[in-house]
Amino acid sequence: MPYMDYVSGCPVDERVIEAMLPYFKHPGNPSSIHSVGLEARNAMEEARGKVASLINADSSEIVFTSGATESNNLAIIGYATRNKSKGKHIIVSAIEHISVINCAKFLQKNGFEVDYAPVDSYGKVKLDELENLVREDTILVSIQHANPEIGTIQDIEKIRDAIKDVTLHVDATASLGKIEVNVEKLGADMLTISSNDIYGPRGVGALYIRKGVRVNPVILGGGQERGLRGGTENVAAIVGFGRAAEITMEEWKSEAERLKKMRDRLIEGLLKIEDTFLNGHPTERLPNNASVRFSYIEGESIILSLDMEGIQASTGSACTSKTLQPSHVLMAIGLKHEEAHGSVVFSLGRWNKEEDVDYVLEKLPPIIERLRMMSPLYLKKKKGGG
Amino acid sequence: MPYMDYVSGCPVDERVIEAMLPYFKHPGNPSSIHSVGLEARNAMEEARGKVASLINADSSEIVFTSGATESNNLAIIGYATRNKSKGKHIIVSAIEHISVINCAKFLQKNGFEVDYAPVDSYGKVKLDELENLVREDTILVSIQHANPEIGTIQDIEKIRDAIKDVTLHVDATASLGKIEVNVEKLGADMLTISSNDIYGPRGVGALYIRKGVRVNPVILGGGQERGLRGGTENVAAIVGFGRAAEITMEEWKSEAERLKKMRDRLIEGLLKIEDTFLNGHPTERLPNNASVRFSYIEGESIILSLDMEGIQASTGSACTSKTLQPSHVLMAIGLKHEEAHGSVVFSLGRWNKEEDVDYVLEKLPPIIERLRMMSPLYLKKKKGGG
Repeated sequence: MPYMDYVSGCPVDERVIEAMLPYFKHPGNPSSIHSVGLEARNAMEEARGKVASLINADSSEIVFTSGATESNNLAIIGYATRNKSKGKHIIVSAIEHISVINCAKFLQKNGFEVDYAPVDSYGKVKLDELENLVREDTILVSIQHANPEIGTIQDIEKIRDAIKDVTLHVDATASLGKIEVNVEKLGADMLTISSNDIYGPRGVGALYIRKGVRVNPVILGGGQERGLRGGTENVAAIVGFGRAAEITMEEWKSEAERLKKMRDRLIEGLLKIEDTFLNGHPTERLPNNASVRFSYIEGESIILSLDMEGIQASTGSACTSKTLQPSHVLMAIGLKHEEAHGSVVFSLGRWNKEEDVDYVLEKLPPIIERLRMMSPLYLKKKKGGG
Repeated sequence: MPYMDYVSGCPVDERVIEAMLPYFKHPGNPSSIHSVGLEARNAMEEARGKVASLINADSSEIVFTSGATESNNLAIIGYATRNKSKGKHIIVSAIEHISVINCAKFLQKNGFEVDYAPVDSYGKVKLDELENLVREDTILVSIQHANPEIGTIQDIEKIRDAIKDVTLHVDATASLGKIEVNVEKLGADMLTISSNDIYGPRGVGALYIRKGVRVNPVILGGGQERGLRGGTENVAAIVGFGRAAEITMEEWKSEAERLKKMRDRLIEGLLKIEDTFLNGHPTERLPNNASVRFSYIEGESIILSLDMEGIQASTGSACTSKTLQPSHVLMAIGLKHEEAHGSVVFSLGRWNKEEDVDYVLEKLPPIIERLRMMSPLYLKKKKGGG
């Protein structure tokens, strides 16, 4: 029963659950002045250190949030509203996560100008076009490290150079734990990460904010997280995030190798099915991502047929899968509507084994064949060709 | 080792942890179209039903958030920005939670007018003054159901009448599970509740939004929670919140009786210490709250001395305990600075036993005596009096 939809959600690692358990029963509020509060504060700060280490940041640069979406809101809306006196132009790539796109649209409605940096057919941001978009009044550029849907990894270091000294936010939700994420090497001023994507609990994420970078809070409360995020800190989940970061630090390299081997075999097998194409970059892609499109049929039908065989995959981002619109990511890399609709993402993770790849490669071809036999377009092509 | 700081943080009930555990290992994203996503969605909707039942609402009126602070942000900033064409005046009570006060201040800086409804010396909102504050352009009134710091319960039904048809938001974070919280009886249009305050996990809360009431989201994302709250839903925590709601529904009445008996005995014993006074209303108060002030000494010193005896209490709201400012709640009920600084809140909960009350009443008087012997004001008074 292979689950290959890690991009939509990950199970929490058993070792993380064990680390969290004592803190569910622990009532301490990190803001309390007594010893029980202090215990909670210490546990939280230890976790902050582990999360900071994973991305080569300082503890004081980590703000805990309720997840990647909130981190993206804090980075984009929080930064733009705080720094609007310096300028009101921001740039995001055309294939950002829907939360980034929606923050950009919100700012557009509120007096900011937004440009969407185009990408090539592999999903790579076009560096020269990005460079040309930068203006005197550009205050923020937000580009993801890797795209969860098509797997393409951006050259953040080159993007950093192209935009000169403009503040750079990097959404590293999909890349953390899969490839190296190092805020210094990347040159990121802000960086979004999420706990669940590294097998920690949901409901917690973080925004790295480089020393000296100023943002407004998005959630107003009692001054927690140095005034940047109100609300009693979710200590158990934060401890879990810390443990997940620690495990990731130790294991990510060998795990990435293991996933890459499986992914390559999966992609190779998938592309043997006729009229099947890879989405995203052939080599500069996340080690766990296999995004392909099958001509003449709908991704939804494939997902549901796979599900009946016990295989879970997705048509793109689960965050937007309920809409009937084709994925903005697939449209941005130049696919036609029908190509976008025929796309399926297999995303691998910690509990996948080689047998899972065999199983998918055994079950999928007859599904594609069956679905195509119901497709008028396919039958017409067959007839024409035969 | 009696923990009497349930107002700052609660342990998660063992039964709730058990309900959550399977969902930590469950990777389902409620937005996914396959069976694993459906399982997650079903679990989430079952929990939504339980939470809705607890406050006599319909499932469709519950929006899950990351906690009470975010719910307050959504209710106040979300409502005000969405409905500003109807008017730009809002009213909050002077003793609201700091997250409500800070949302009000944010709106004030952004073109809204805010009035702070005064309270009497017990902390009850003055109904006639509230009524007078309501204007043609008043779009929102936000009043808490009960105050976590002084325990005073508001007459929400009378407040509802006083403000006529203005939209009413009620912060029921402190009252849920302690007294009846029924959105229909209260006449609330929006109502904030939190999971941890009923022994569910942190990092999850809800905002009840009556059918027809429109708000803007505060966290922008992929359209989750009917577009009102972006971010992958925290299914495990939501399931825990649901289980906590279910337990609360079954047990709250008998538990409130049990807490009230302990609280009464605690207050009676505390007031036997000379120059000690009750904060808040003598009878219309939360069954678990004993808030008192000890003349001539500082609350912080008492908290730290109690802590050395294994007793945890607080000086007011943990959310603001790191500041040196006296509590805005205690100032609003007319206390002098030194009276506010001498206040201590004992808040009881599910794991307190009668022996805990005995223990506190045994350990506290010598602490007060010792601290007073170091207070120049007290010694001067003693001398004058003796």
